[in-house]
Amino acid sequence: MDATSGSEELVSPEQLEVWRAFDRAHVHVVRQLEADLHELHRLPLPWFDVLARLSEAEGQRLRMSQLADLVMLSPSGLTRLVDRMISEGLVRRIPAERDGRGFYAALAEEGKRRLGDASETHQRGVRDYLLERFNDDELTQLAGYLRRVYE
Amino acid sequence: MDATSGSEELVSPEQLEVWRAFDRAHVHVVRQLEADLHELHRLPLPWFDVLARLSEAEGQRLRMSQLADLVMLSPSGLTRLVDRMISEGLVRRIPAERDGRGFYAALAEEGKRRLGDASETHQRGVRDYLLERFNDDELTQLAGYLRRVYE
Repeated sequence: MDATSGSEELVSPEQLEVWRAFDRAHVHVVRQLEADLHELHRLPLPWFDVLARLSEAEGQRLRMSQLADLVMLSPSGLTRLVDRMISEGLVRRIPAERDGRGFYAALAEEGKRRLGDASETHQRGVRDYLLERFNDDELTQLAGYLRRVYE
Repeated sequence: MDATSGSEELVSPEQLEVWRAFDRAHVHVVRQLEADLHELHRLPLPWFDVLARLSEAEGQRLRMSQLADLVMLSPSGLTRLVDRMISEGLVRRIPAERDGRGFYAALAEEGKRRLGDASETHQRGVRDYLLERFNDDELTQLAGYLRRVYE
């Protein structure tokens, strides 16, 4: 079986191109968002994502496990990221009240300010690099397709 | 302007969710492909992509600039990656004939073998994690939407 696996075709070249188009479209948007946020605000995209998720949360704070799920980082990856953001004053660490374990990450004043500065840049990028290529019906359909992939 | 930028809304929360769904769907597929290729073949996904692109090219070789465009890496990032693949015997370096500058990356025998082993795993992943969630018409439509983003 293994020796012939390279010649078996579970996926046609045309089907493979759908995945490659997915990958390329994603890279295309991410790189431009990254470049804009770096150039105008010196803010890495994952930092923006953390700040945005915290600002949307009740009390502007989240358990680390919730935040990791939202920004799609591993617990260890998020801990490293949040540690850097704490050292730059963008995020505060708040001990969880009930159980002694774990803590909340909370939006700090400086994080709120940096997010406010960068938010319009991010929105403009999402609009220009993705949304404006579709009408409302197409966007609804695209969103449905995308959710099918991970739900 | 800047002071109020955080409160202006160029993009509605629902529209932002389309981008977030895009990002989540992409991560979802990539992580599973990475995990499968690592577990079964100890092959990082970017290595697989390089081997696949070389195997599809005429003469199973590509100029580094062409390869960088196909696998969406910076020239320096691709050079580092290909150097590692050369040192493991998966890729060969061939000087470009006409001009003295630059060189081709070519599929080596060991690279062909590793690609053959991993190809079915990759195809199965692309099928299971992405393609099989759509019928043929939907896939065609999705591919068209994705191309609009980067074309």
